[in-house]
Amino acid sequence: MICMQTEILNKINSPEDVKKLSISEMNILADEIRQGILNRVDQIGGHLGPGLGITEATIALHYVYNSPVDKFVFDVSHQCYPHKMLTGRKEGFINPKDHPEISGYFNYNESPHDPFMIGHTSTSISLATGIAKARDLKGEKYNVIALIGDGSLSGGEAFEGLNNASVLGSNFIIIVNDNEMSIAENQGGLYKNLEELRNSNGQAQNNFFKSFGFDYHYVENGNDIQSLINIFEQVKNIDHPVVVHIHTLKGKGFEPAVTNKETGHWSMPGLLSKDKNLNFDTVAECYETITNNYILEKIKQDKTVIPITSATPGVFWWNKDFRNQLGENYTDVGIAEEHAVAYASGLAKNGARPIYAVMTSFIQRTYDQLSQDLALNNSPATILVYWGGISGADATHLGLFDIPLICNIPNIVYLAPTCKEEYLRMLDWSVEQTKYSVAIRVPSANFVSTGVEDKTDYSILNKYQLVEKGEKVGIIALGDFFELGKEVKKELLQSGINATLINPKFITGIDKELLNSLKSDHKVIITLENGTLDGGFGEKISRFFGDSNVKVLNYGASKEFIDRVPIDELLERYHLKKELIVQDVNKILLNTTL
Amino acid sequence: MICMQTEILNKINSPEDVKKLSISEMNILADEIRQGILNRVDQIGGHLGPGLGITEATIALHYVYNSPVDKFVFDVSHQCYPHKMLTGRKEGFINPKDHPEISGYFNYNESPHDPFMIGHTSTSISLATGIAKARDLKGEKYNVIALIGDGSLSGGEAFEGLNNASVLGSNFIIIVNDNEMSIAENQGGLYKNLEELRNSNGQAQNNFFKSFGFDYHYVENGNDIQSLINIFEQVKNIDHPVVVHIHTLKGKGFEPAVTNKETGHWSMPGLLSKDKNLNFDTVAECYETITNNYILEKIKQDKTVIPITSATPGVFWWNKDFRNQLGENYTDVGIAEEHAVAYASGLAKNGARPIYAVMTSFIQRTYDQLSQDLALNNSPATILVYWGGISGADATHLGLFDIPLICNIPNIVYLAPTCKEEYLRMLDWSVEQTKYSVAIRVPSANFVSTGVEDKTDYSILNKYQLVEKGEKVGIIALGDFFELGKEVKKELLQSGINATLINPKFITGIDKELLNSLKSDHKVIITLENGTLDGGFGEKISRFFGDSNVKVLNYGASKEFIDRVPIDELLERYHLKKELIVQDVNKILLNTTL
Repeated sequence: MICMQTEILNKINSPEDVKKLSISEMNILADEIRQGILNRVDQIGGHLGPGLGITEATIALHYVYNSPVDKFVFDVSHQCYPHKMLTGRKEGFINPKDHPEISGYFNYNESPHDPFMIGHTSTSISLATGIAKARDLKGEKYNVIALIGDGSLSGGEAFEGLNNASVLGSNFIIIVNDNEMSIAENQGGLYKNLEELRNSNGQAQNNFFKSFGFDYHYVENGNDIQSLINIFEQVKNIDHPVVVHIHTLKGKGFEPAVTNKETGHWSMPGLLSKDKNLNFDTVAECYETITNNYILEKIKQDKTVIPITSATPGVFWWNKDFRNQLGENYTDVGIAEEHAVAYASGLAKNGARPIYAVMTSFIQRTYDQLSQDLALNNSPATILVYWGGISGADATHLGLFDIPLICNIPNIVYLAPTCKEEYLRMLDWSVEQTKYSVAIRVPSANFVSTGVEDKTDYSILNKYQLVEKGEKVGIIALGDFFELGKEVKKELLQSGINATLINPKFITGIDKELLNSLKSDHKVIITLENGTLDGGFGEKISRFFGDSNVKVLNYGASKEFIDRVPIDELLERYHLKKELIVQDVNKILLNTTL
Repeated sequence: MICMQTEILNKINSPEDVKKLSISEMNILADEIRQGILNRVDQIGGHLGPGLGITEATIALHYVYNSPVDKFVFDVSHQCYPHKMLTGRKEGFINPKDHPEISGYFNYNESPHDPFMIGHTSTSISLATGIAKARDLKGEKYNVIALIGDGSLSGGEAFEGLNNASVLGSNFIIIVNDNEMSIAENQGGLYKNLEELRNSNGQAQNNFFKSFGFDYHYVENGNDIQSLINIFEQVKNIDHPVVVHIHTLKGKGFEPAVTNKETGHWSMPGLLSKDKNLNFDTVAECYETITNNYILEKIKQDKTVIPITSATPGVFWWNKDFRNQLGENYTDVGIAEEHAVAYASGLAKNGARPIYAVMTSFIQRTYDQLSQDLALNNSPATILVYWGGISGADATHLGLFDIPLICNIPNIVYLAPTCKEEYLRMLDWSVEQTKYSVAIRVPSANFVSTGVEDKTDYSILNKYQLVEKGEKVGIIALGDFFELGKEVKKELLQSGINATLINPKFITGIDKELLNSLKSDHKVIITLENGTLDGGFGEKISRFFGDSNVKVLNYGASKEFIDRVPIDELLERYHLKKELIVQDVNKILLNTTL
């Protein structure tokens, strides 16, 4: 915890209090807000650079506009900390005990100053357009303001929003917070235009925003409160859509986050105390390191191997050194998951070996591309899905829905490895083969290495591994939860039951031969999966056994948006503990005769 | 069938043959191609205006470029008929018996001249970028050409593609086919810019394409073969990305399709013989008419009711008269499904009553918006999902996947009415309530009216209707398939079984009380749903009964991309016929003791 000055901040309980301040007091407030951001991130981790860069603009917005009558929609919420501190939630930044109470994202459950819960990018303009249109239909008058970073502009939803907002015909204010960065560097032609606009003080001949018909203003010093107040006053109550393009400094006020804007975008706890260089790389073997080593080796043999990210290279530990080694074989498409999947399909269709790495929560943006651009075309691309599974994450970043999303699309082969050896075998099979669109759920549980080489031929689809044949009870333990399956097997042995243990490996299909063979001497089959049950893997097993005497129990998460619930509480809630599972099984066995 | 002249077309068996023609022969060929389009559409229906408008450009492209070495990617494929006629598939347009053999869409199974199967919009630039990057990685040299209509440009995926294609740094040619229309009118600020460009012969100060850094050319007469050849020759083998913006006439050569470009976009069969005015409206009562009457009545009471479409108003019979009556309460967002959902969420959050109507196949583009922008925010919008269910459609337009897609997202209430009265009650409940995000699967089966007013309170979620209590066998018949459920019940009576019949109404939840009550006197439960089984409704019922003695049989479609398979063949394949179902049930009953 840092020693905070809160002289001005102490007086701020709502935006009304901001309006009473002088410019010099607002500048002091900006410093205090930055201390609050650093304090919170140091304690519990979070988004650092975005909030530090938007501090002055947030103060100026609340000085000029009248939230919550005027409506703010903050894109992706990475930059919402100053806003929270000015709207009655400063304790979440000052007092460590209050930190977990306040979400790191826009959250309508917390405050009327947050009209939505937001954690995915590129949505603000569309959401705010709806707010504004409803205002117009109701005959009301107030300002609707969407705040969007330059990075979020590359997402297709933002573009669709711009196209429609520009013809709204009434008050609509888009603040483009241009800090010259996405999470990593920006990617694409749009960013050359933003650079031209910055370099020309907004006067460049080509103007992306004006091409939609937006009115347009540029503010070179987007960290100068007076300049910001001036422009916000000027566009206040405007009767048509306008873009205010402000140039800010990401990470302002904390040198390590300015020097390295990418690692300073989001930080683990311990920011100030131990790791001022914001360097979180490590050399321990894990799924990230083995993936990256595989890619680097493979590229030496095949110059068409091409790793793709949609703006989150850090998630996969694709640091600058890794990227430099890849050269032109590396593609960051920016925040553009739809493009990433279609691009991978095009690459694969023309003989290259794309490997698209993506977080579970963001694969959600690509259902139709997975279906139409990829699977329908049987394009042999590889998709690596990271961070899947039950976690204590914010409701906007859950990793629970990728199995239902992917596994019900025809043609895709979705694989769930349980250890290093399987994972590498699957990955290499996927990259080498040319018949299927393949996704692999990179384990998010503890790193497991059996030391035994996997020699499975994964071109024989939907062939489950019968790890140990027993009787009465069968455990089908998918991916991450294979270890839990082993524990349940051990626990059942205590009750004298020698259960069958199966590692299904394939999420997208049923091993009918193996499952049929269980019918004669098994009373109960349990399925374990690290994701939501609805639409998932286990329900397919239930359907398969529906006409038989075999009972089936599916274990996994319920269909719900959980929000920062401790993982142990969730495992208890979902009965994902060996004792609870064995209790359930014994209860069934008591009531069952074969 | 029309009397076709095929003097030149007869000589064209591949693009090589196009290269031998003179300009005057190519102009004759254009006329013959148009006759082919009219002939096919008259016989089996299909896309009319787009192909008529792009005929000259397609001839010029094949004259200049060398497909399939040079690669063409046609966006959405609405305009692919001339291309098919020039690439060995003209019989699909000349001879009625061959029409069904040739798909109306780009299809890599048909020809090496179609690198992909494509039927959804806004994908061409991303797919082609992948093709081009693979070319570069392999060190190959040829032209990669994406052809995209102005309408498709409004989709976010196209924008993401433009942003990335513009920095590809190598040969890449985008042909923007600007016929001043989407399926209906274009929507959004981008289209004002296209108009400025047309009006200034490409010289307008603001240039959307140049703002990405694209090289840019404009061709005012996009139906003049010589002009097109000149520009295509000029950009051939270019070493950087370029946009060629051509101005064409949608429907050219067939006056009714020029006069009414919207109804001329796609046509039912019988184009030439009986309905030259392309007017397919009718006054018979159906789900479209009752929906539209409801909306018109509701708006009289509530000025915040706002129907939304993403560029397909005709699908819902939202014709010009209907739109005019709605005035500012009508929104067409263009081809922008993501925006549509987020916009609806914003509207609902600010107190309006959005009703977003969308085709099943295109709701696929909005998974993340349904989840994050809508459901996570519990925004009380209404989504009407049309055309769901098993059909003989092309693989790119299947209506099979909406149930798995929507029903596994938390918070959304997805309803399946079985008749007019239920549908209207659900619709009104959804529009009036303010707690839930609601989707309704508008029946696609025959129109059913019971004449009995539905008084159900749909705010009591997941309450199934017990239509008739019987024993031994329970039939849970969802939505469209309720009529099939009734037939199965009748058929079972022949075997002396008085089955229980249930109309579940709620796709997104389980009526535990009712289902538990069946356990004591039912041996078999069958579920019927008009969609894919994987991840769908029935599997949830299977899971529910997994620990009980009740057997469950799920009926619905398999997980597969079916392509123009006759519906009766599918119903047979999936056992969706009363006789087949009763056979299955009897087989189980024979082997089961309660």
